[in-house]
Amino acid sequence: MITISERGIQMPASPIRKLVPYAEAAKQRGVTVYHLNIGQPDIQTPPAIIQAVKDFDMPVLEYSHSAGNESYRRKLVDYYQRTGIVVSHEQIMITTGGSEAILFAFFACLNPGDEVIIPEPFYANYNGFACTAGIKVVPIPSSIETGFALPPVAGFEKVITDKTKAILICNPNNPTGYLYSKEEVTALGAICKKHQLYLFSDEAYREFRYSDREYISPFQLPGLEENVILLDTISKRYSACGARIGALVTKNKAVYAAALKFAQARLSPPGLAQLLGEAAVDLPADYFDATKVEYQSRRDLLVSRLNAMEGVFCPNPGGAFYAMARLPIDDCDQFCQWLLSSFTYNNQTVMLAPATGFYATPGLGKNGVRLAYVLNRESISAAMDCLEQALKEYPGKAR
Amino acid sequence: MITISERGIQMPASPIRKLVPYAEAAKQRGVTVYHLNIGQPDIQTPPAIIQAVKDFDMPVLEYSHSAGNESYRRKLVDYYQRTGIVVSHEQIMITTGGSEAILFAFFACLNPGDEVIIPEPFYANYNGFACTAGIKVVPIPSSIETGFALPPVAGFEKVITDKTKAILICNPNNPTGYLYSKEEVTALGAICKKHQLYLFSDEAYREFRYSDREYISPFQLPGLEENVILLDTISKRYSACGARIGALVTKNKAVYAAALKFAQARLSPPGLAQLLGEAAVDLPADYFDATKVEYQSRRDLLVSRLNAMEGVFCPNPGGAFYAMARLPIDDCDQFCQWLLSSFTYNNQTVMLAPATGFYATPGLGKNGVRLAYVLNRESISAAMDCLEQALKEYPGKAR
Repeated sequence: MITISERGIQMPASPIRKLVPYAEAAKQRGVTVYHLNIGQPDIQTPPAIIQAVKDFDMPVLEYSHSAGNESYRRKLVDYYQRTGIVVSHEQIMITTGGSEAILFAFFACLNPGDEVIIPEPFYANYNGFACTAGIKVVPIPSSIETGFALPPVAGFEKVITDKTKAILICNPNNPTGYLYSKEEVTALGAICKKHQLYLFSDEAYREFRYSDREYISPFQLPGLEENVILLDTISKRYSACGARIGALVTKNKAVYAAALKFAQARLSPPGLAQLLGEAAVDLPADYFDATKVEYQSRRDLLVSRLNAMEGVFCPNPGGAFYAMARLPIDDCDQFCQWLLSSFTYNNQTVMLAPATGFYATPGLGKNGVRLAYVLNRESISAAMDCLEQALKEYPGKAR
Repeated sequence: MITISERGIQMPASPIRKLVPYAEAAKQRGVTVYHLNIGQPDIQTPPAIIQAVKDFDMPVLEYSHSAGNESYRRKLVDYYQRTGIVVSHEQIMITTGGSEAILFAFFACLNPGDEVIIPEPFYANYNGFACTAGIKVVPIPSSIETGFALPPVAGFEKVITDKTKAILICNPNNPTGYLYSKEEVTALGAICKKHQLYLFSDEAYREFRYSDREYISPFQLPGLEENVILLDTISKRYSACGARIGALVTKNKAVYAAALKFAQARLSPPGLAQLLGEAAVDLPADYFDATKVEYQSRRDLLVSRLNAMEGVFCPNPGGAFYAMARLPIDDCDQFCQWLLSSFTYNNQTVMLAPATGFYATPGLGKNGVRLAYVLNRESISAAMDCLEQALKEYPGKAR
């Protein structure tokens, strides 16, 4: 018998995918489904960066440099400079989305069996990339009571073993929206320095911060030049998820050289989309202002509506475009399915992401959901009407 | 001390990369370098397929389906039908170049430590993908004397162990240009059937065949529906290497489902380039005719020039746009470097790929080079003038 691989079996399927058929069936029945379940923004992709692709006029669409077009990498030096990150174009590698940057970091830095510590809840696809690379995710729980702040340093120290090679954070965080403080980032850096660990910093949502809290990237910490690997993407920043352009950035020459060998094997990142990414660096300085104002007003609406519902608690997230809420329910997977299969309000319903999908520790997150505020205020308002009514009707309420 | 991973160390660097600084230095000195070293065609990318990208007019560049746009996959059903391959759109998965299709196949089908048999010489990046997946390449030598025909079945049987999970072929072949006969493909299928092995069929060069030999894809073999994984790419077919669009095609539902989980983790293949790929299916039926005529005339020129040189032997390849030649030299790596660093003819020289890079067996290929006929006839002719003169002057001649 011909069989698939062990990792093919163990590779996790996204928990949201299980809900997709129910959402499709609801639409078939004529029900309007508000998608707060995925981080696919409705914000327009800036026409100027699409235009850069339309202006392509080379006779042959050739392979680019495996690390990405040098002109783009040089532009990115300016972009990072503006965010307070000082790098050269030879420390930047263009990847196929942030996904490939994460994979390259895992491949280049960790052996099969090695461990990466990740505060949970965390972006579910980290599990998939860890499975692909044969490494183990060691979760360390953050709490909704603290708004998902960084767990205390002692918690990290407790789970560090001789297999631990890295700590991975996402800041601002997906799925919690938490924005790590300068003190938290500094504390993380100290742990990584003390135990000689890599610090993988996923900064996909860098620009989307809604607090006066001082922002700092681990990349800015002195003395951690060998430890920090910045994982980046233009997907959310410029509402260009389909472009598949990201970056791996590091001052660690050995890591860069190793990652480049993985990059060379796959030849080059997407060519047309690199033109888009390069043009994005030239967007006017106020581009993010309008987007931030929009996201912040959505967040304010979403969070206030949630906290006004009986038995619901949602900390106010400082960044990204996600919020995690605790609901008065006993099983979020069941609840999210029920919303799609058995509930409507004014012939509408809402699709949410069960929080369980963002936890590695079994049993955690059962009364939570992640909400992505990627729809306009009117839609969010209607979605909250649905959720409010649903919680009144839902038979699986927590006691 | 913070260290990179074992696979980061073991990951092979491309042998051609070592030559790049020498090529750049030659250009700095004002020398014209003819690049016959890489498979980057000079053929124009069809303007109609670039136009499909320019016609993009959605407000948001969203994630596509993880398996690729359904409209594109449905179009590809027609494309494959025309080549004699019958599949449904649910058996086709769009990948980020052929590279990702190879990686997904390795990940989904083989465990770390498992073995894949590949006739050598073979495409050097298979080594990189095998290293990434932690699997072992078991080479089985083909011979220049037979034009690099499939090694006898007995040769395969001899190296099959309980770790063997797959045989990988590239047809028409990179780097040899060999076009496998129906008998050879059928024999391969029988081995895979008998030993319950996967048959990975890399068909990047499908359309570029220059013989009357009946062509067959392993996909067309009856009774091998569970075994065959087709690995495909539009890079060479439409001279669109930079698009990064490929495909994994299989009737094996378990493999498809497993590969899809790897695809879901990385969210989606490039969005803009899928529009280009979809438009390519609609190119007029005679599109390949002109390209084939051009490649064939280049091949005829290249091969006849090579075989006219003293001590040189180059079998006439039946497909793709590569040829492997045996030269009267003792070390191809040295020779290719010497061509760039110490030789010119009319202030010109030629960059070739040392054959050693395409062999896994140490010591093989030392007197060979791969030539990619991706330049026009005039350039190929000038490059052959250089090579002919170089072989007269080269001090490292074989005795």
